[in-house]
Amino acid sequence: MKRGDSNMKLTCGGDPLVSRIEVKVRFSEVDSIRVVWHGSYVKYLEDGREDFGERFGIEYMTIFNNGYTAPVVDMHLQYKQSVTVGDTVIVETKYVPTLSAKLIFEYNIFRKEDNALVLTATTTQVFMTKSGELQLSNPPFFEEWKKRWNIG
Amino acid sequence: MKRGDSNMKLTCGGDPLVSRIEVKVRFSEVDSIRVVWHGSYVKYLEDGREDFGERFGIEYMTIFNNGYTAPVVDMHLQYKQSVTVGDTVIVETKYVPTLSAKLIFEYNIFRKEDNALVLTATTTQVFMTKSGELQLSNPPFFEEWKKRWNIG
Amino acid sequence: MKRGDSNMKLTCGGDPLVSRIEVKVRFSEVDSIRVVWHGSYVKYLEDGREDFGERFGIEYMTIFNNGYTAPVVDMHLQYKQSVTVGDTVIVETKYVPTLSAKLIFEYNIFRKEDNALVLTATTTQVFMTKSGELQLSNPPFFEEWKKRWNIG
Amino acid sequence: MKRGDSNMKLTCGGDPLVSRIEVKVRFSEVDSIRVVWHGSYVKYLEDGREDFGERFGIEYMTIFNNGYTAPVVDMHLQYKQSVTVGDTVIVETKYVPTLSAKLIFEYNIFRKEDNALVLTATTTQVFMTKSGELQLSNPPFFEEWKKRWNIG
Repeated sequence: MKRGDSNMKLTCGGDPLVSRIEVKVRFSEVDSIRVVWHGSYVKYLEDGREDFGERFGIEYMTIFNNGYTAPVVDMHLQYKQSVTVGDTVIVETKYVPTLSAKLIFEYNIFRKEDNALVLTATTTQVFMTKSGELQLSNPPFFEEWKKRWNIG
Repeated sequence: MKRGDSNMKLTCGGDPLVSRIEVKVRFSEVDSIRVVWHGSYVKYLEDGREDFGERFGIEYMTIFNNGYTAPVVDMHLQYKQSVTVGDTVIVETKYVPTLSAKLIFEYNIFRKEDNALVLTATTTQVFMTKSGELQLSNPPFFEEWKKRWNIG
Repeated sequence: MKRGDSNMKLTCGGDPLVSRIEVKVRFSEVDSIRVVWHGSYVKYLEDGREDFGERFGIEYMTIFNNGYTAPVVDMHLQYKQSVTVGDTVIVETKYVPTLSAKLIFEYNIFRKEDNALVLTATTTQVFMTKSGELQLSNPPFFEEWKKRWNIG
Repeated sequence: MKRGDSNMKLTCGGDPLVSRIEVKVRFSEVDSIRVVWHGSYVKYLEDGREDFGERFGIEYMTIFNNGYTAPVVDMHLQYKQSVTVGDTVIVETKYVPTLSAKLIFEYNIFRKEDNALVLTATTTQVFMTKSGELQLSNPPFFEEWKKRWNIG
C-alpha cells in the first residue's frame, strides 16, 4: 500500500480526513466484457474504508472491539470509466462530517496509469451493538475519535 | 426459479413490467457478522435483472447478440434489514420507463420467510457498441422491445 | 431447484447418497475469457453440498446447531470443459463413506444443455467444536446421521 | 507488494523460480465462522501466480498477447490453519518444471504475523489458442521463456 505524501497535511485539524490506497485489479474481478465487473468495486470501496480506518484509527476491528458493528445502510456508486486486467486503481476515501450517529464516506477511484476518474461513490454506515440494536447517538469511542481529529 | 402468478397480469400493456425470482443465500455470501455481506446483494440484483430479461426478452445475451453491451453506470442500494445463511430472498425487478437511451430498474428484495423488505435499489444502464461507443439514442432492437411491451 | 427422480431410489439403505441440483451461471462468475472463472466452481460445490444437506438432513445449520463446524481441509477440482453465461450446470453431490471423523463428498458437474461432464471434484471436511478443537471421533449427531442412512 | 530479498538469488539458473507476495485479507473474504472462506484462497493463488508472472515475465497478459490462454485444469488445496479479518498472508508461488506443455505451480501460504503455514496448493494450467484448441506441445513464447530461465 502506498499513500500520497499529500495526505500528510490532510490530517491536520479542520482539513478533511482522506486516505489513498492502490488496489491491483484481480483477474477474477473482470467480467466477460473484459472490464472490472461493476460489483467488484464494492470491494475496492471496502479496501479504501479499511485503509482509512488503519490510517486514522477507526478500522473494522476497532469498531468491533469497542462492542459495535457498522453495517452499510446506503451505498451509491457512479461509474465514469472502466478498468481491466493489469490495471491498478487508486482509491481515495474521504470522511464526511455529520452530526448524526453515522459514518459517511465519499470515494473517488482513479485509474493509476492515466489518473482518469473511474468511479465516485458514497457509503453510509450506522452503529449497532453486537446484539443488533441501532445506536441513535454516537458510541463513546466514536465521540472520542471525532475529538481526536477535531471533528465538530 | 419460481415466479408469482401475480406476474401473469403484470405483463399487459400499460402495467409495469415486473419479475420475481427466489434466490437462496449462499454460505460464501455471508460475512463475519453472520449476515449477507452488503456487496453480495449486487449479485442478487443481477439475478433479478437477468430473470426480468428472460421473462420479457431482454436478457444479457439478447443485448449482446444485437451488438451491444449495457454497462451499469449508476447503482444505489438502501439496506433495510439483514438476511443470513439458510434464508431465501425474493428479488422483485421492475422496469422504469424513460425516454432516454437507458435501462432503469427498481428492485425490492424481500426475506421469503416473513416477507420483510430487506433492500431497495435502483440501477441505470446505458447502451454501448462492442467497440465502446456510447449510444445516445435507443438501439433499434430496444425500440422494438419497447413497442412490443407498449412502453411509450 | 430440481432433483432428478432417479434420486428417489438412491436414498435406500446401502445405495450411495446423492443429490442433484441445478445452478444457473451468474454473469459475475464468468471471467474475461468468457467462461466461468475456475474459482467460481467452489461456490457450485457448496451449492451441491448444501443441497445434499437439505435432502439428507445434514446441512450447514444442522451441523452448526449441534455445536460444530465442518471446515473444508482438502479440495481437489479437475476441469474437463468450460461453461459460460446463460448456461445452467447440474451439480451431483455424492457422499463417500469413511470410518474416520470426516465428511467426504465427490462431485460431478454437468452442463445441462448437452449433459457434458464439466468438472469432477472431491472435498474433505473435518469436525471442529465452536471453540476450535478438532474432533478425532465422530460427533454424536453425525453417528446418528450415519445410522439413519445405514452407513457403516 | 513486497518480495523477500531471498528471492534475489532464487532467480539464478538452476534454482527454483519462486515469488512472494503479501495479500491482506478482505472483510468480504471472511465467512460466518469468522475465518477466510475456503474458496477465497483461490484468489490468493491467482495473486501469487500473477505476481510470479510479473516477476519472471509470464503474466496473464503476456500469455494472452502471445495468442494463448492458460486455463486451470487441476487445482488442489490443502488447508492447514485459518486466517481472519486483519490478517495478512504471504503467498509463495513456485514454478514446477515439467516436460509436458503445462504450467504447474506449487504454493505455500503463510500467516504473516507468526509465519504459520496456512495452506499448500498445486495448480496445473494448459495452453489453448484463443479459438479454443488445446496445445499439446509448448507454444514458442513458452519455449523461449523456459530457455531464458534455464529450465530444461
